[in-house]
Amino acid sequence: MVKVGILGYGTVGSGVFEILDKNSNIISKRAGQDIEVKYVLDLRDFPGDPAEKYVVHDFSILENDDEVKIVVETMGGLHPAYEFVKASLLKGKNVVTSNKALVASFGTELLQIARDKNVNFLFEASVGGGIPIIRPLQTSLAPDEIDEISGILNGTTNFILTEMTENGSDFDSVLKDAQAKGYAEADPTADVEGYDACRKIAILTSLAYGKQLDFEDIYTEGITKITDRDIKYAAKLKAKVKIFGSSKLAGDKVSAMVAPKLITHDHPLYSVDGVFNAILVKGNMVGDVMFYGQGAGKLATASAVVSDIMEASENLDNNINVIWSDEKLELMPMDEVVSKFFVRVSGNKADNEAKIKELFGEVEFVDAGYDDETGFVTKDITEAVYENAAKEIGSVINKIRFDA
Amino acid sequence: MVKVGILGYGTVGSGVFEILDKNSNIISKRAGQDIEVKYVLDLRDFPGDPAEKYVVHDFSILENDDEVKIVVETMGGLHPAYEFVKASLLKGKNVVTSNKALVASFGTELLQIARDKNVNFLFEASVGGGIPIIRPLQTSLAPDEIDEISGILNGTTNFILTEMTENGSDFDSVLKDAQAKGYAEADPTADVEGYDACRKIAILTSLAYGKQLDFEDIYTEGITKITDRDIKYAAKLKAKVKIFGSSKLAGDKVSAMVAPKLITHDHPLYSVDGVFNAILVKGNMVGDVMFYGQGAGKLATASAVVSDIMEASENLDNNINVIWSDEKLELMPMDEVVSKFFVRVSGNKADNEAKIKELFGEVEFVDAGYDDETGFVTKDITEAVYENAAKEIGSVINKIRFDA
Repeated sequence: MVKVGILGYGTVGSGVFEILDKNSNIISKRAGQDIEVKYVLDLRDFPGDPAEKYVVHDFSILENDDEVKIVVETMGGLHPAYEFVKASLLKGKNVVTSNKALVASFGTELLQIARDKNVNFLFEASVGGGIPIIRPLQTSLAPDEIDEISGILNGTTNFILTEMTENGSDFDSVLKDAQAKGYAEADPTADVEGYDACRKIAILTSLAYGKQLDFEDIYTEGITKITDRDIKYAAKLKAKVKIFGSSKLAGDKVSAMVAPKLITHDHPLYSVDGVFNAILVKGNMVGDVMFYGQGAGKLATASAVVSDIMEASENLDNNINVIWSDEKLELMPMDEVVSKFFVRVSGNKADNEAKIKELFGEVEFVDAGYDDETGFVTKDITEAVYENAAKEIGSVINKIRFDA
Repeated sequence: MVKVGILGYGTVGSGVFEILDKNSNIISKRAGQDIEVKYVLDLRDFPGDPAEKYVVHDFSILENDDEVKIVVETMGGLHPAYEFVKASLLKGKNVVTSNKALVASFGTELLQIARDKNVNFLFEASVGGGIPIIRPLQTSLAPDEIDEISGILNGTTNFILTEMTENGSDFDSVLKDAQAKGYAEADPTADVEGYDACRKIAILTSLAYGKQLDFEDIYTEGITKITDRDIKYAAKLKAKVKIFGSSKLAGDKVSAMVAPKLITHDHPLYSVDGVFNAILVKGNMVGDVMFYGQGAGKLATASAVVSDIMEASENLDNNINVIWSDEKLELMPMDEVVSKFFVRVSGNKADNEAKIKELFGEVEFVDAGYDDETGFVTKDITEAVYENAAKEIGSVINKIRFDA
């Protein structure tokens, strides 16, 4: 019998409670012992809810109860999640979290405390919701040098881009629709500006290379500048616009970014639409491996949390080796990163053509039926070359990197 | 330092040797110790090969060397693979295998010996080649009751069906092409008749439900009857023909089969083409999760083997709990399994319509431009209802189940 304390009875926390109850037979059998909730910490009470009798309002009750061997942090936010998690680890408790912000900001320190205390700090649910990715990256793909990780890591933006692609709708109206459907938050900034995906790719990249990557160092570009015209050009290019969190190994350097990209039908993530997430990992031996599923949602995310609870229950006093040192992962300077760029500049092709070729080199023009602008795709060029050319031409409407 | 003995220096065995060599730095770091090959057992010698100095011809050398803690079985076939694996486990060695036939036939017994000896019998590479599926099913999806597993589990048949779909080619010429390219064996029976996929879905289903499923009990239908006409009808239905190994939970019964199926673009495996494999798992909490990658190939499969070697190296004297008892998993009788059927009967629609409706119930007719036959799709009916109707009408050219 293992006793669990849940911090935060919101969407994910209540999902964890529900799974531990509804699937208790399966969980007990597979974990080799019963796993039971002892406390649910929340500021609120939940009269009539099955969790009602477990609710406490004071963290120190969990903290000081030695019977609680696993603390499940599903509060979200950095504070007091960080303080509660750190205190739990220092008390020799295992901690499981779904909190990407916490892992991205304090993962290095919290993993070290877990090591020191011979317990575990597990966070499968922090990336990709219900998609198994953290554990497969550390186990199944352990023999491989990771050459690339490319993930559709945010369901809200994938839903918005899918709707724009399928219905020709513009960003603002799709966002409003997504908010009405509950797929986007009232304040959608963290999703649409790529901040959410940024924390997730930071976590995956830290695990892939075993070093700390500060998410603030990752170039991050959202989808707010994507218009219906971009989508029309994409269709002309037989491509879709998707926003990726990605990192790549080039020589001994790693590049990382969050940005919208154009991908064509031969890309393994081309058909990942709507609120689904997927993560492509390229290993130097295994080749392309892709993981797909619900990147958010109460029970999907909670299932990932419970898988970590089960792993912790089998390793209560045994730190599972996670290679994520406090050595900082130095990223390749963004200036040196090479991409093909799809670019739109104002003014028609006849007026623009010579200047574009002079500044951007050999390009392929794309006609989506607009006379007041010129669309084209560059060859592989560095960000620095692109930036200089864009500054020089002075009339860039938008650019999207081409993942080909 | 852990010493490994490899049984069989064929495609996968030599891939394992290559990965342990080329990625030795990463592997040592992540496994926490060096992993080194001590013996390669093969009937042949390999003069000039890096493995040359490790080659032995007598299994008893490995068997009786206590320094060999992990035996890697990549010989394929049932005998002497079974005898060697069993002897290794009985000597207290961990065993890792890529051999699906061995696992499907003797998994129950070999897992029990591993339990008794407190070692491990691991077989990630036996299903899906480089795709992580065995371990995620046992760990990441452990909180879930598994409602369904549907897998494109054989690269050869997926390649053949993809070519038939994309180029309108007929089965025989694509098979010849696949043989020329090395994607199909000289004797393609195990692939094209579904026997390979059958063993793989037997393994996955045994793991999902924790009981022994005899692969002989699984209804297995290959792709040899699929013609260019079927592919044309599929296109009319906006569907593709894929061959699946699948199992489903219905109430407290499990159904399982290997058969070609029609799937439409909203199916997560619709875009899995060519030699790639993918496995869709539906959990009662996590929803749809999909795993995709190279289902075969030297280094992809060998990477999965090495991930097991690394897991074994961290658990040399610790049996990792695998729930797969000797209790037999009773399958739902095939007669009771419900599907929609796409059916082609000879003779034109005018002559056939009344009879078809009388026998098959409400159907949707499909016109692919053939006057000498009639194509239609049934509602959900049992296999028994289909079989009776097919026998009664007497003129069925082919039928393909519709996964919708």
